[in-house]
Amino acid sequence: MAAPIDAEEVLARFEELSVLESEFEDAELELIRKSTALNQPLWNKRAEIVAKIPHFWTLVLEQIPVELETFIQPTDFKLFTECLQTIEVSRFEIDDPKGSPRSFSIKFGFGENEYFFNKELEKKFWYRKSKDWAGLVSEPVKIVWKKGKDLTGGLTDAAYELAQAKKTLAKSSGGKAKAKAEAELPEYKALATKIEENTEGAPSFFTWFGFVSSYKCISPEESEEAEKEERERIEKLKRGEKLDDEEDEEDDEIDYQETEVFPQGDECATLLAEDMWPSALRYYKQAHEADDEDLSEIDVDDMDEDDSDGEIDIRGLVGKGRSNASASPPSKKQRKA
Amino acid sequence: MAAPIDAEEVLARFEELSVLESEFEDAELELIRKSTALNQPLWNKRAEIVAKIPHFWTLVLEQIPVELETFIQPTDFKLFTECLQTIEVSRFEIDDPKGSPRSFSIKFGFGENEYFFNKELEKKFWYRKSKDWAGLVSEPVKIVWKKGKDLTGGLTDAAYELAQAKKTLAKSSGGKAKAKAEAELPEYKALATKIEENTEGAPSFFTWFGFVSSYKCISPEESEEAEKEERERIEKLKRGEKLDDEEDEEDDEIDYQETEVFPQGDECATLLAEDMWPSALRYYKQAHEADDEDLSEIDVDDMDEDDSDGEIDIRGLVGKGRSNASASPPSKKQRKA
Repeated sequence: MAAPIDAEEVLARFEELSVLESEFEDAELELIRKSTALNQPLWNKRAEIVAKIPHFWTLVLEQIPVELETFIQPTDFKLFTECLQTIEVSRFEIDDPKGSPRSFSIKFGFGENEYFFNKELEKKFWYRKSKDWAGLVSEPVKIVWKKGKDLTGGLTDAAYELAQAKKTLAKSSGGKAKAKAEAELPEYKALATKIEENTEGAPSFFTWFGFVSSYKCISPEESEEAEKEERERIEKLKRGEKLDDEEDEEDDEIDYQETEVFPQGDECATLLAEDMWPSALRYYKQAHEADDEDLSEIDVDDMDEDDSDGEIDIRGLVGKGRSNASASPPSKKQRKA
Repeated sequence: MAAPIDAEEVLARFEELSVLESEFEDAELELIRKSTALNQPLWNKRAEIVAKIPHFWTLVLEQIPVELETFIQPTDFKLFTECLQTIEVSRFEIDDPKGSPRSFSIKFGFGENEYFFNKELEKKFWYRKSKDWAGLVSEPVKIVWKKGKDLTGGLTDAAYELAQAKKTLAKSSGGKAKAKAEAELPEYKALATKIEENTEGAPSFFTWFGFVSSYKCISPEESEEAEKEERERIEKLKRGEKLDDEEDEEDDEIDYQETEVFPQGDECATLLAEDMWPSALRYYKQAHEADDEDLSEIDVDDMDEDDSDGEIDIRGLVGKGRSNASASPPSKKQRKA
């Protein structure tokens, strides 16, 4: 059998699979919409109930799987125990025809605390596409740290400042600035240097608020263009037309990750939004379940709201459940009835 | 604040959360139904296309995440490369009011091979509940090994024989036999001993066909009863009625895991059905994607069907993609466009 024929055969299969893939993607988006519609009233109801449970979200975070837990350091947990009040995930582009049901925001609500002035930190993730990548991008969130209390060693500030400088540059150049021009900003160098210096120990979870992209930042316009091209390509394939040879885009030779303060920020966000958030009740129950522990035997003084002066040993309370759970960990898709 | 009031408060929150949890579960089941309805036509189409691609499923299995890969040994991969032809997942109880949309079967199709006579191995998983557990249970599948070729060292045979002996015992005792009586079966001791002896090295993936439960085997009747009790409990809570004190069931002091040949079989099955199966196209593409590799440059001789005499270096072919992928692994919820 001659090789050229086989090459065409292989190519034909790949083209069929490309079309199929786009159909799978449409089904997936439809399911995210359906899931949000079905669950949103329940998430609202959950928020009402858990607002009456002190430390609910901290207890949940204590039970998350290890892939997510690695992003959260002991000092972060200390902060959560002190003042984390609410977590809320929303699919803010779900009804936006130009947006994506894959985009989401994660909003943390905090009480008065010794670390920062913000009462709320909301991190938004937009699902965007470029010619050869698709994923979540974000913008740095400004955390107003109290003096000497910045858990990120200045990284969130520097990331925020670079983002602002990029915006100013883009405005002045009437569009998105070239990566090369961005790399010449003083804020770029400042952040790159700070990241290079900050190599000791695992970064605080709060550094995640400075995350931009695990690839590069993609503007809504760029994403829309890539989406359009992709749709056209699929339509051509469906009609059995030949595709034009694609030209490789010029590489602008910038290391986009040089100024990324939290390289796996999208992965961390996805775990928060798609594991922690929908499974919060299960994790909370896990914190309380102990083989021989009857609910009535829980030392309720530990959970008394009036007691929440920062001295409650949440880790102790949770650790109890955890040691039992680890003897026979419920697997992800199983639930204890 | 007096402790008893708080205990009641806490209990009230737990009861509210129980009701809410059952509503989340209903939403989840609805979504599994919706997902299956949306995707089934696409899975059928996929099966048609990939039937024309030699080694499709083996290439997919080579790309699965490490949690699943640990269940598959090099000798298993050798077997797959030699003769794995199809994989098919189905939700066989999706329209059964007494069944669960969470139940599924995984069917492997094989060509002629040196290991066993079966052309097809289908493993079914039923989602069942007991009073304090919910999860997937299965039944051992009979693999007809060729002489000296049993990759499981007799474990699948012994597991199958115990399952048959249990069925006979149940029939003769007019219902499900007591765990204690089952433990007295000679097949029980035979299997327990075999497991005890088989401690060297990681077990072959094919041992998974002998899996029963990571808890204990639960009959459909037992599960239906538990489901009914659970629903009644939730209804009572919804009406604000007081629950009866639950009696702890007597523990029959049997170590159910003593005869389990593949302790994490349900986890492995879930990863196959809910990760590998829906993401198969992505894994397949991963096997072929290499940064600078144009499709037209693929050495099609490697993929020529006429060449499939067992000498094709699938691992070599895939390894190429993999080394590239590992430099920048696409995270689970992202896709390369």
